Amino acid sequence: MHQDRRLFLQQAALSSLGLLALPQASASMFSGIATADEDDLKADLIFRTRIPRNAEPPLPKLVESWITPNRLFYVRSHAPNPVISRDSFRLQIDGLVQRDTSFSLAELEQKFTRVECTCTMTCAGNRRYEHSKVKTVGGVQWEEGPIGNAVWSGFRLSDVLKAIGLQDAAEHVWFEGLDQIQRGDETIPFGGSVPVSKMLQDADDMPGVLLATHMNGVPLPIDHGFPLRTVVPGYIGARSVKWLGRITVSNRPSPNHYVATAYKLVQTGSDTDWAEAGPIYRFIVNSAICSADLTELANGRVTVGGYALPTGLPDTSISGVELSADGGQTWQAADLDHAGGDYCWTLWSATVNNVRSDGDLLLRAADSSGRIQPVSVPWNAKGYMYNAWQRVPVSSLKSFSQ
Amino acid sequence: MHQDRRLFLQQAALSSLGLLALPQASASMFSGIATADEDDLKADLIFRTRIPRNAEPPLPKLVESWITPNRLFYVRSHAPNPVISRDSFRLQIDGLVQRDTSFSLAELEQKFTRVECTCTMTCAGNRRYEHSKVKTVGGVQWEEGPIGNAVWSGFRLSDVLKAIGLQDAAEHVWFEGLDQIQRGDETIPFGGSVPVSKMLQDADDMPGVLLATHMNGVPLPIDHGFPLRTVVPGYIGARSVKWLGRITVSNRPSPNHYVATAYKLVQTGSDTDWAEAGPIYRFIVNSAICSADLTELANGRVTVGGYALPTGLPDTSISGVELSADGGQTWQAADLDHAGGDYCWTLWSATVNNVRSDGDLLLRAADSSGRIQPVSVPWNAKGYMYNAWQRVPVSSLKSFSQ
Repeated sequence: MHQDRRLFLQQAALSSLGLLALPQASASMFSGIATADEDDLKADLIFRTRIPRNAEPPLPKLVESWITPNRLFYVRSHAPNPVISRDSFRLQIDGLVQRDTSFSLAELEQKFTRVECTCTMTCAGNRRYEHSKVKTVGGVQWEEGPIGNAVWSGFRLSDVLKAIGLQDAAEHVWFEGLDQIQRGDETIPFGGSVPVSKMLQDADDMPGVLLATHMNGVPLPIDHGFPLRTVVPGYIGARSVKWLGRITVSNRPSPNHYVATAYKLVQTGSDTDWAEAGPIYRFIVNSAICSADLTELANGRVTVGGYALPTGLPDTSISGVELSADGGQTWQAADLDHAGGDYCWTLWSATVNNVRSDGDLLLRAADSSGRIQPVSVPWNAKGYMYNAWQRVPVSSLKSFSQ
Repeated sequence: MHQDRRLFLQQAALSSLGLLALPQASASMFSGIATADEDDLKADLIFRTRIPRNAEPPLPKLVESWITPNRLFYVRSHAPNPVISRDSFRLQIDGLVQRDTSFSLAELEQKFTRVECTCTMTCAGNRRYEHSKVKTVGGVQWEEGPIGNAVWSGFRLSDVLKAIGLQDAAEHVWFEGLDQIQRGDETIPFGGSVPVSKMLQDADDMPGVLLATHMNGVPLPIDHGFPLRTVVPGYIGARSVKWLGRITVSNRPSPNHYVATAYKLVQTGSDTDWAEAGPIYRFIVNSAICSADLTELANGRVTVGGYALPTGLPDTSISGVELSADGGQTWQAADLDHAGGDYCWTLWSATVNNVRSDGDLLLRAADSSGRIQPVSVPWNAKGYMYNAWQRVPVSSLKSFSQ
């Protein structure tokens, strides 16, 4: 049913096209807007908003496996899903390159080496509800679920841009989605941006930036950017642009709203505050309790599990996860059950002793770059980058037991 | 003698010019490099480097008056002082304006209203030696002295640019000095940059950005940018460019080294690290002990004084200064003797009780934006923005008594 519906919409898009070679990636490449169908409604996710689609998984399920199945992978969208024809799709590339060009999916496959990488994606708004406890912030009220770890497959952005050739002044690469976001009277695409030096930071098993066509072995689900998206290891999810239609090379970060204004740490909404703040790129060290076994609670013992994410820097992984049952006076080390490398989360578990049923558990993680989660973080107007120690009342741990 | 020397150099510059109207601000506007003369060597400053000239005042002298006399005002330069002829000087303006233009000093005076403002300037490297205690950072090893509060006089940058007219895409204003900084094989000017929205943030008694010709009632001393500099209230000193020769309006922050690379908070020196970090603009809440009266120490009492600087935001001033003699368990409020308004420091004093001669004093300040100095700050590779609580051993307070 789901598959049929998608095919139908793709064919509708194709037949309405009229053009085969488009001068610019444009809205005419798709004709419809996908809506949640019955399969989606049965999905294992908790929808925070349905239009656009924003959903996170139940936490105990999230940490059942180190690779997050697509059906449990959080969805973050700013507009209804665009439906794009795989056959007529062309990726447009312009700006400070040697020549403007475009590629079909078949041409990308033919010209460039397919590579695979495993990395974690997380929303800058992960744990936003903690900021809202201090003072309500707008946006999706995410809990600890907008994070997931997947195997991505596609092409190195650096291979593609090196083949075309960069001009000397190239410093940043802009991404533009084919979604259509309504902002007041304007309709704009979602946009992202990365420094050229980040794009060039290719390692054997980790591209600086990936142009991904597949997620966990299957073509990207529509919710995750079919047929092409960027995946930027180590960066907040917003820089991994879904339904990618256009790449522009420039001497400055993208002027798109989601780079130039949104996704910044600001205290007020003044124009100067926005202008003074730089775009957020890297994600930061963070952790969360996601599962709990309370059968031994009467004996002062609980077993908990969760994830820990290192700072999104090269050569950086989780070095330790600790829990405290006495308000931070003493800390007990968790077991790192499935340790991840660069840009990947680590799953951990711990049996914590001396737990009082009316007490709290505290959680904090540290990474190999020397960064450790702080006791508290300053409130910011958009509610991003909350990574303070997690404090969970023992009485609420039952929501983490399956 | 000092005055004679300057006149001599100015005349030399003038006679060697050949041109009166220059298409670009250029090195030919000055012919010499000023060097420290006898007067300078007698100045009340502690020189950290003599070429270029980098000096800070002795702390007890710094807080003798709310307005810092020019002879006690810290000097931060990146190259030998350029010597510029007042008469042949022209300020060049180009980029996203309605037309390229230039102004002599006389034309600026004739066309624009002269305004005056009082604000504090501070180096982003203030207290850098504290970072170096953790791990040595390069650059001038500033103590607590690179800060000062002056009355500046000149012209609103917004008046000048509104008269010329901005293009719609204008978002940032670049400043370029007439100094010549040797960086490897290159010679570059010092550069700064401010958002257009900051420039437009004019208040009655405080311009968004000032083009200053005078400091505390006299023409700018050479060390402070004669004949013209920018003064950007609330921003780190680096954005207030001395020996200003050129203004360029753009859609992005300046690519000059001192905006695009230096004056950023980074952990390593990788290209990506630099590219990901935005420029530092605002200064942050900070404070320092600068003077001490130890005559009552035997009775467990010391009287100390110093400065406190609020975050460089509009409508923000120091709301409190506190000291602790017991490691932060209890805090004693200081008197705000000369409270400053927006963008201005506050001078404070306190008689602290229960002081042990082998103990420490702790100091912290808070401002009306709700920001308070943190217990500690992360180390950064360039040693900027150190504003943790100050910890001063009582045994070393004697260096603060005059």
